[in-house]
Amino acid sequence: MNAPESVLPNILPLAAPPAGPQATPRADPLAVAAALAAELATTAIERDAAGGHARHERQLIRASGLLAMSIPTDFGGHGAGWDTTLQAVRILARADSALAHVFGFHHLQLAGIQLYGTQQQQRHLLHASVDDGLFWGNALNPLDRRLVATDAKGGFLLDGIKSFASGSVGSDWLTISAWYEPTQAPLIGVLPTGADGVDVRADWDAFGQKQTDSGTVQFHNTLLPIGLVLQQPGQPATPLSTVRSQVAQLIMTNLYLGIAEGAFAAARDYTVGEARPWFAAGVATAADDPFIQHRYGELWTLLRPAVVLADHAGRELERVFRRGHDVTARERGELAIAGAEAKVLAHRAAIEIGSQLFELTGARSTSARFGFDRYWRNARVHTLHDPVDYKYRDLGRYALSGTLPEPGPYS
Amino acid sequence: MNAPESVLPNILPLAAPPAGPQATPRADPLAVAAALAAELATTAIERDAAGGHARHERQLIRASGLLAMSIPTDFGGHGAGWDTTLQAVRILARADSALAHVFGFHHLQLAGIQLYGTQQQQRHLLHASVDDGLFWGNALNPLDRRLVATDAKGGFLLDGIKSFASGSVGSDWLTISAWYEPTQAPLIGVLPTGADGVDVRADWDAFGQKQTDSGTVQFHNTLLPIGLVLQQPGQPATPLSTVRSQVAQLIMTNLYLGIAEGAFAAARDYTVGEARPWFAAGVATAADDPFIQHRYGELWTLLRPAVVLADHAGRELERVFRRGHDVTARERGELAIAGAEAKVLAHRAAIEIGSQLFELTGARSTSARFGFDRYWRNARVHTLHDPVDYKYRDLGRYALSGTLPEPGPYS
Amino acid sequence: MNAPESVLPNILPLAAPPAGPQATPRADPLAVAAALAAELATTAIERDAAGGHARHERQLIRASGLLAMSIPTDFGGHGAGWDTTLQAVRILARADSALAHVFGFHHLQLAGIQLYGTQQQQRHLLHASVDDGLFWGNALNPLDRRLVATDAKGGFLLDGIKSFASGSVGSDWLTISAWYEPTQAPLIGVLPTGADGVDVRADWDAFGQKQTDSGTVQFHNTLLPIGLVLQQPGQPATPLSTVRSQVAQLIMTNLYLGIAEGAFAAARDYTVGEARPWFAAGVATAADDPFIQHRYGELWTLLRPAVVLADHAGRELERVFRRGHDVTARERGELAIAGAEAKVLAHRAAIEIGSQLFELTGARSTSARFGFDRYWRNARVHTLHDPVDYKYRDLGRYALSGTLPEPGPYS
Amino acid sequence: MNAPESVLPNILPLAAPPAGPQATPRADPLAVAAALAAELATTAIERDAAGGHARHERQLIRASGLLAMSIPTDFGGHGAGWDTTLQAVRILARADSALAHVFGFHHLQLAGIQLYGTQQQQRHLLHASVDDGLFWGNALNPLDRRLVATDAKGGFLLDGIKSFASGSVGSDWLTISAWYEPTQAPLIGVLPTGADGVDVRADWDAFGQKQTDSGTVQFHNTLLPIGLVLQQPGQPATPLSTVRSQVAQLIMTNLYLGIAEGAFAAARDYTVGEARPWFAAGVATAADDPFIQHRYGELWTLLRPAVVLADHAGRELERVFRRGHDVTARERGELAIAGAEAKVLAHRAAIEIGSQLFELTGARSTSARFGFDRYWRNARVHTLHDPVDYKYRDLGRYALSGTLPEPGPYS
Repeated sequence: MNAPESVLPNILPLAAPPAGPQATPRADPLAVAAALAAELATTAIERDAAGGHARHERQLIRASGLLAMSIPTDFGGHGAGWDTTLQAVRILARADSALAHVFGFHHLQLAGIQLYGTQQQQRHLLHASVDDGLFWGNALNPLDRRLVATDAKGGFLLDGIKSFASGSVGSDWLTISAWYEPTQAPLIGVLPTGADGVDVRADWDAFGQKQTDSGTVQFHNTLLPIGLVLQQPGQPATPLSTVRSQVAQLIMTNLYLGIAEGAFAAARDYTVGEARPWFAAGVATAADDPFIQHRYGELWTLLRPAVVLADHAGRELERVFRRGHDVTARERGELAIAGAEAKVLAHRAAIEIGSQLFELTGARSTSARFGFDRYWRNARVHTLHDPVDYKYRDLGRYALSGTLPEPGPYS
Repeated sequence: MNAPESVLPNILPLAAPPAGPQATPRADPLAVAAALAAELATTAIERDAAGGHARHERQLIRASGLLAMSIPTDFGGHGAGWDTTLQAVRILARADSALAHVFGFHHLQLAGIQLYGTQQQQRHLLHASVDDGLFWGNALNPLDRRLVATDAKGGFLLDGIKSFASGSVGSDWLTISAWYEPTQAPLIGVLPTGADGVDVRADWDAFGQKQTDSGTVQFHNTLLPIGLVLQQPGQPATPLSTVRSQVAQLIMTNLYLGIAEGAFAAARDYTVGEARPWFAAGVATAADDPFIQHRYGELWTLLRPAVVLADHAGRELERVFRRGHDVTARERGELAIAGAEAKVLAHRAAIEIGSQLFELTGARSTSARFGFDRYWRNARVHTLHDPVDYKYRDLGRYALSGTLPEPGPYS
Repeated sequence: MNAPESVLPNILPLAAPPAGPQATPRADPLAVAAALAAELATTAIERDAAGGHARHERQLIRASGLLAMSIPTDFGGHGAGWDTTLQAVRILARADSALAHVFGFHHLQLAGIQLYGTQQQQRHLLHASVDDGLFWGNALNPLDRRLVATDAKGGFLLDGIKSFASGSVGSDWLTISAWYEPTQAPLIGVLPTGADGVDVRADWDAFGQKQTDSGTVQFHNTLLPIGLVLQQPGQPATPLSTVRSQVAQLIMTNLYLGIAEGAFAAARDYTVGEARPWFAAGVATAADDPFIQHRYGELWTLLRPAVVLADHAGRELERVFRRGHDVTARERGELAIAGAEAKVLAHRAAIEIGSQLFELTGARSTSARFGFDRYWRNARVHTLHDPVDYKYRDLGRYALSGTLPEPGPYS
Repeated sequence: MNAPESVLPNILPLAAPPAGPQATPRADPLAVAAALAAELATTAIERDAAGGHARHERQLIRASGLLAMSIPTDFGGHGAGWDTTLQAVRILARADSALAHVFGFHHLQLAGIQLYGTQQQQRHLLHASVDDGLFWGNALNPLDRRLVATDAKGGFLLDGIKSFASGSVGSDWLTISAWYEPTQAPLIGVLPTGADGVDVRADWDAFGQKQTDSGTVQFHNTLLPIGLVLQQPGQPATPLSTVRSQVAQLIMTNLYLGIAEGAFAAARDYTVGEARPWFAAGVATAADDPFIQHRYGELWTLLRPAVVLADHAGRELERVFRRGHDVTARERGELAIAGAEAKVLAHRAAIEIGSQLFELTGARSTSARFGFDRYWRNARVHTLHDPVDYKYRDLGRYALSGTLPEPGPYS
C-alpha cells in the first residue's frame, strides 16, 4: 500500500502547509511530519497487529525535531501555532493514529506547562524539553481521586495510581493530578517518570490504538517538590487554565480526522488500483460503478466538513491561546463550541468511513495484509474518550439559549 | 414570531457583515438586506399562503438599492463581491425564500452579462440596470430547445416558449437562450420583457416557492437585435463563460441555507418561547428536555458545516469570477467541486431541518398561523432543481480520480 | 393519478384480505374499504386544499357500513378483529389520511365502550351505534383538566373545554373525560354531541390532516347522567382498561403507514408514468436510473418492516383485547412494546417517504395539481401526537431491563 | 461475560423454538443449538484472536447431531424445516459466527444435493452424511472459471483451483463447480475432500470470520466420477435448482442477524452490569442515562425488523423448497425479494449494532478481554459477500415495476 500521505495532498487541500507568521527558519514542520508519517506507515500494519511499545518509532519522532514544534521560540522551540501542531497530529494519524496520539499528548503536556506554570516554570521546563529532547506523558485526570497528595516537607507526597495514562510508558516526564483532601480539590504538577516511587505498568489492552503507551502509573511515597507544582490544590480555575481541555479535545479531533483521511485514501487507492467491478454492474472498472461513485461522494461529504471545521477550530485555539491571561470566559466557551462541533463531525467521519469503506473495496480487501480494519478499530477505541451524546447536548444547549459548555476536563 | 434575522446573528457567526475590500461607501449591503428581510418577514406567512406575484415586495427590494449590489462600481453599482451578494440571498431567504430566489436570479442575470457580454454590452446593460433600477428575470435554459432563433435582418427572430422562467413575471428585462438550427447550438441574449411578441404567463403552481414569478415566456416573431446577443450560436464555451452555472448553483445553495437557518431560528424561538415540556419528561421547560437538546445539537451539526462550506465556496466564486478571462478549466472545476459539496450539505440541511424541526416544537406548532411548514415546502420544491444524486456522483468521481465535473447548465 | 389502492396490492402483500374467523357473511370489509378509499381519492387533493368539514365524505363512510365493522356480532356489528379494522384504517389513509383518522377514532370510541363500560352500557350503546349509524368523536384526554365534573342530581355537571377533539365536528356522540376534584382523578363518560350545553367549535387549523374535524368542545352546565358514566372518578385502571391507549396508538400507526404506502405508490406511478430521465443519466427512462432504483430499494426497506411489524402488533392487539378481564399487566405491556416498535417505524416511514419521494419524481412533480406534498404534511402533523423520542426511550428501557412502559394515555 | 444466548430469550422472542410439523421425536434442535452455542461461547474470544482451524469445536458440532438436522427423515435425518435450520445458524452465530458459517454452509451443500441431485444421489449422499456424520464444505462458485473439467473415462478430470472455499479445511466432502469448455458452462458435482489430486490450503487471512476454514482448494488431475455429477455442464437451470442461492443468502442473513443479536446482548449485559454512568449525566447508573436508553431504543428498531423479516423469509424458503419441481419462477423470485429485504436489514443491523454498541458501553469496554470488536469485524467481513447496493437495486426494480431478480449465484 502506498503511504496515504503521498496521495492525499492531491485532493484534500487541508494538509497544505499554511504560510504565515508561525513559519520558522527551520524546516517546514508539516513537511517533516509528512516524511515522518511516510516512515511510520511502512510498519504501521505490523505494529498494529503486534501492539506494545514502539520504542524505535518514538525515537524517530524524537529525531524529527517535532517534539519541540509547539514550544515558543522564546523557550528554544519552533514556535509553531496550535493550528499547525494539530495538523501535524492529523498527518501522523493518517499513517499511525496510536503514535499520533502519543505525539499529540506530548504537546498537550507542553500546553499545560504554558497554561498553568509560572514564567519560571515555563522557562525551565520548556527549555529542558527542547535541550534534552524530552518526551512527555499524561497522568492528569482531575476526576480520578485515586492518586492522593499529602503535605510533605518541600512539597507533597503522592500515593496511589493513575490509569489510562497516555504516553506514560517510555516517557521522560509526566504531568500529574492528585487529590488533596484539605481543599477537596486536585493539584497539578510535573515529575520525571523516573522519579523515586513512580512505577509505570504497560497494561493497555484495547483492540485499537494499541501503541499509545497508555499505562497505569503507580506512585508510592513519591515526593512532588513544590517547584514542580503547576497549580496549587484549590487554586481557582481561570478561563486560560481551562483551555487545556480544549487543546486535548482538538488533538483528539485531529486524530479522528487523520484516521478518516487515512481510511479514505486507503479505500480510494484500493478501489482504483485493486478492486474488481461487480459482475452485475456492467462497467469496466470498480471506479466506474455508479453506486461506488455515489458512496465516495457521500463519504466525501462526511469528511470535508469535518476537515474544514477542525481547521477553523484549530485557528480559534491558536488565537485564544495567544491571548494569554486576557482570554475571557466567553472566548473560551466559544472555542469549546467550535471544538465540539468539529469533534462530533470528526468522530462521525472516522467511524463511518472506517466502517463503510469496505462497501467500496469489497470482500478481498478484508485480508489482514491490508490492515484496513485498523481504521475502524482505532477510531472506535479513541472516540470513546468522552461520550459524543454530551457533545450534542452541549451544542444543543448553546443553540437553544447561548449557554456555553461548563469548563471541565472534557468540555 | 420574531424576525429570524434578529436572532440568528447572536449564534450563527455566518451572517456577520464581512469587513474587506468589497465594502463601499454606501450602507453596508448586508445590514440593508437584514432590514429588508425583517420587512418581508412581516407578511411572509400570508403571502406564502396566497401565492401569486408580490408586486409590493418586489418594489421594496428595488427600493433597497440591493438590485445594484453585485454590479461593479465601474458601471455604477455597489461593487459587492459575490460572497457578499450570496450572503444577501441567504439573509433574505431566512425570511422569504421565494423573493430571495427572485433577487438571487436577478443577480445571476447580471453575472451573465459580465461573463458573456462585450465590454460595451456590459457598460450599456449594467449602467442601465443601475440607472433605471431594472429587475432582471431568467429565460435561459440551454437544454430546452422549444425556443428557436432564426436569422433575421439586424439579428434573430425568436419563436417558441421557455417554461419555469424564474422571476419572469413582473421583470423588466430577460436573459434568454434560443436554439439555432444551423449551428445545432443555442445563442444567448437579452431582451426587455415588454418587447414586441413577448408574453409572460404566470402559470407556476408548485406547493412551495410560490412567489418566484416562475412563469412561461412565449415568443412570437420577436426580434432579438444583434446588439443584444451576448453569445453567438456555436460560440465555444470558455472556462469563464461556464462560471455562470456556478453562480446559479451557489445562489441556490445559499437559498437552501437561508431556509435552513430560518427554520432553525423559528424552531428555537418556539421551543424557548412557546413549547410546553412533555408530561413524561420531568423537566420544567421544553428547552430542558435532554432529547430536545440532543436534537438541537444534531441539527446544529447539519447546519454549521453547510454554512461554513457555502461561505468557502462563495469566496472561491468571487476569486474565480475576478480572474476574468484568465480563469482556467481547473480553477473552474475546483470551484464546481466546492459548490457541489456546499450544495449537497445545504440541500440536506434545509430538507432535514425543515422536516425535523417539528420533533422539537410539537403538535401545537403545526397551526397554520405559524407557517412552519413553509420551510420544508420551499426547500422541497427548490432542491429539486437538479438531482442531488448527480452531485454525489460528481463528488465521488472527483474523490476517486480527480475528475472535474463537466461544465454544463447544472455543474 | 390512479387511486393508490388499485396499485398497491400488486406489490404490497400487506393489504391482502386476511382469511380467518373474523370473516363475516357480509361483504369483505377490506374490499369495502378499498372501494371507499378509491372514492375518497377522487376528491382528496381538492379537499386537502380546501380543508373544513367533509360532510359528504363522512356520509360515504357511514353508507359503507364500516362504522359497525369493529362492533361484535353480539351487539349487531360485523365483528371484525382489531387487526382487520386497523387494516381498514390503513387502506383509507392511503387515499385520505384525515378521514381515515376520523374513521379510526370512531372505532377507538367503540373500543372504549367495550373496555370501560358495563355489559348493559355496551349493549345499549353499541346496538344504538349499529342501529342509528352513529358517528363517534373523541373528547377524552385525561391529562387536560380544563373540563371539570361536579356532583349533580342523577349524575355530574360538566363545565369547561376539550381542545383537539378529533372527529368532534359533525359527530353524533362523544366520549369525554372530565376532572373531578374530590378524587383528584378524571371520570370517563359518553354523551350525545347534541346534548344541552355542548358546543363544538371547528377551530382546527393545522397545515395537514385538515379534515379531521378536530374541534374544541365547550361544555356549559351539561348534565352527564350516571348511566352514561363509563368509568367513575377514582376508579382504578385495570390492565384491560389501559388497552385503550394501545388501540389509539395502533390506529395512528396504521394511519402513518397508510400515508407511507400512499406516498410510495404515488411516487412509483409518477416515476413510471410521468418522470423524465435526467439528461446526464444516460438512460431511456427515469425508472432505469440506477440512483432512482437504489432509492426505491431504500424506501422499500423503510416501508416493508413498518408494515410487517404493524401487522404483528395488530394481531397482538386483537389477541389481548379478546382476553377481556383476564389480560395481565405483562400482556398489556408487551402489546405496548409491539405497538411502540411498529409506531416508530411507521412514523419514520411516513415522514421519510413523504419527504424523499420527491428525489424520485423531480421538480415537475411539485405542481399543486398532483398534491404530493400532502403526504408529508399529513404525516408531519399527525406524527406529533406524542414525541417519538419517548417511544425510543420506552423501547430502550425494555431492551435494557425488560421494563414495560407505564400505562398512560400515550403508552 | 455471560453467554448471550442465556439472556436473549427473555426479550427477543425470535429464538423461541417453533412448534409445528417439523418437530421430531429427537431433542428440540434449537435447544441443542443453544446448548452448543453456550459451549462455543466459552472459547469464542480466544479462538477469534488465534484464528485457524477449530478442530475441537467442529467436533462438538458433529457430536451435537445438528449436522443432520436439515436432512429429511426419509434419508435418516431430523427433517427440520429450513426455517428451523436457519434459526440454528442464527443461534450459533450469536456466540461464534465463524463456526455458524461452517455449520450453515454444510447445510447449504445438503440443500444442493436435494436441489440438483437425482433421487438416487440424494439417497446415497444424504444417508451417508447421516451415517458417517459427514461435514460438508463448499467449492462451488459458478462465476470462477479457474477450475476446469475435461472429459475423461467414467466422468471428468478436474484441474485448477477454487479460492474462498468456505468450510473446505477439515471437511469430509465438497461440492464443486467446474468450467466445461465445450458447453461454455459449469458442471456441479461432489467429491470426498480426500480424493486423489485434491489439496486444501488454509490461506484465509481476513480480519474477521477467522475460523470459517475458507481455504483454497487445488485440483490436479482429479477424477470426478459420473455418478457424482449433480448437474451436467449446460444443463439448464430450473426455478428449483436456482433456489440454492436463496438458501445461501438466507444462511448469511441469519448469520448477520446472529452477530447483531450477540452484539446487542453483549452490550446490554455490559451496560447493565459493568458500565459506569457518565459524570455529567446526573444519574445513578449507566442504564438510567436518557441518551443511552434512547440509543438502545434506536438499535432495537434496527434489530427487530431484521429478525421479523428474516423469520418471514425463512418460512418462505421452507415453503418454496418443499414445493420441489412445482416451484415457479415467480415463487422463486418472490422468495428472492423476501430474502433481499431481510438480508439488507440484517446487514445494516449487524454492522451498525456492532459499531454503535460502543457508544453504549464506553471506553473501558474496548479491552481485548471482552472481545466486543469481533462483532463488527465478523459482520464487516461477511457482509461483503456480495454488494448490498445491488440488493437495494433489485428491491427498487421490483418496487418500480415488479421485476424479479435475475436468478444467479447471488440473487
